[in-house]
Amino acid sequence: MAVESTEPGTVRPGGRTARVRAAVLRAAGDALAEHGFAGLDLGDVARRAEVGRTTVYRRWGTVTALVADLLDDMAEQSQPRTETGSLLEDLRANARLVQRTLTDARQGPLFRAVIAAASCDPDTAEALHRFYRARITEWAPCVTQAVGRGELPEGTDPDEVVRAVSAPLYYRLLASGDPLDESAADRAAGAAVAAARAGAYLRRAGPSDRPEGA
Amino acid sequence: MAVESTEPGTVRPGGRTARVRAAVLRAAGDALAEHGFAGLDLGDVARRAEVGRTTVYRRWGTVTALVADLLDDMAEQSQPRTETGSLLEDLRANARLVQRTLTDARQGPLFRAVIAAASCDPDTAEALHRFYRARITEWAPCVTQAVGRGELPEGTDPDEVVRAVSAPLYYRLLASGDPLDESAADRAAGAAVAAARAGAYLRRAGPSDRPEGA
Repeated sequence: MAVESTEPGTVRPGGRTARVRAAVLRAAGDALAEHGFAGLDLGDVARRAEVGRTTVYRRWGTVTALVADLLDDMAEQSQPRTETGSLLEDLRANARLVQRTLTDARQGPLFRAVIAAASCDPDTAEALHRFYRARITEWAPCVTQAVGRGELPEGTDPDEVVRAVSAPLYYRLLASGDPLDESAADRAAGAAVAAARAGAYLRRAGPSDRPEGA
Repeated sequence: MAVESTEPGTVRPGGRTARVRAAVLRAAGDALAEHGFAGLDLGDVARRAEVGRTTVYRRWGTVTALVADLLDDMAEQSQPRTETGSLLEDLRANARLVQRTLTDARQGPLFRAVIAAASCDPDTAEALHRFYRARITEWAPCVTQAVGRGELPEGTDPDEVVRAVSAPLYYRLLASGDPLDESAADRAAGAAVAAARAGAYLRRAGPSDRPEGA
């Protein structure tokens, strides 16, 4: 497949391919942050990325496929977990990372746009869920290690604890509109740790997330 | 203003006005649930409500104003809080109400549509925030009463506890896509109570939600 380089000089096709993808995904993120999903257009993305339209249409084909690739790339690129040796410090670092991301001038609108798109497009929703799955998998070991250190009860579900850190921050961003500041992040981490210590996130006897009934 | 009745027979204008509003808001909710915000059209809503187009255009004017009125009506119509005398039981009832609403065949898509619309429209966002403000105000007394009964520490912020019950459920619906079942609702209530008991939601010394710093 013919691929235009986004940089001068001759480079190996692999290098070009990677740089073209990076340029296109960067442009797609910029476009989403500026105009939302409804305003996303492959031709506009190609112009912003200074990449040939045919390359973008051939490789991604649809805006949905482009957004899915952007989300997969965001999952790959997202920052590794913090390991301080203290669960509260680890989760506070995670909460502050989420809070900074959601309030970032580019990332905030980008996440809002992708989440809005996911609410009416199943493929985008799947890609979004893969993104959060990757983030939860990245941070879960902080909880597993805390159980090992005796900071949390045996049988604590690490995924539930990691979700509990992000949930209050997304709720403020998407639903209630309450301030999304650093103290909200610290409170989210503190509440997750307190609830986990009290055994609120113990794995269920039955298969995960099967209703327990009343 | 001429107002068509949605029911046969002669009624007082006030009665007609109220019934027309109810019919139009019902139709707007149905249309949002079926086609999302982008597919919302005042003419279509008038047809669904069997109300004259001029009435809808004159009274609401824009889809944004119609959605804002729908959200204000949803806040007025929303169910009163449960009072069992136990904080855990009260908040579990709240969590299950939220979970049933978000997974309801009509209400679920309706909330997703309105939340998506709020992410790109400030007036819709304001109306959405008023809705959650009303819900938090309705349920906060459960927490205040629990503090009075000595179930929670003095200085617990009731709004934070109520938000903590809903947040994990909205996070599953909008972000992570994890199952949104009754056990998720019970876990959300249990975690909120455990964290509140541990003092994770104490009011801050400074003005609410001002950053505390590290």
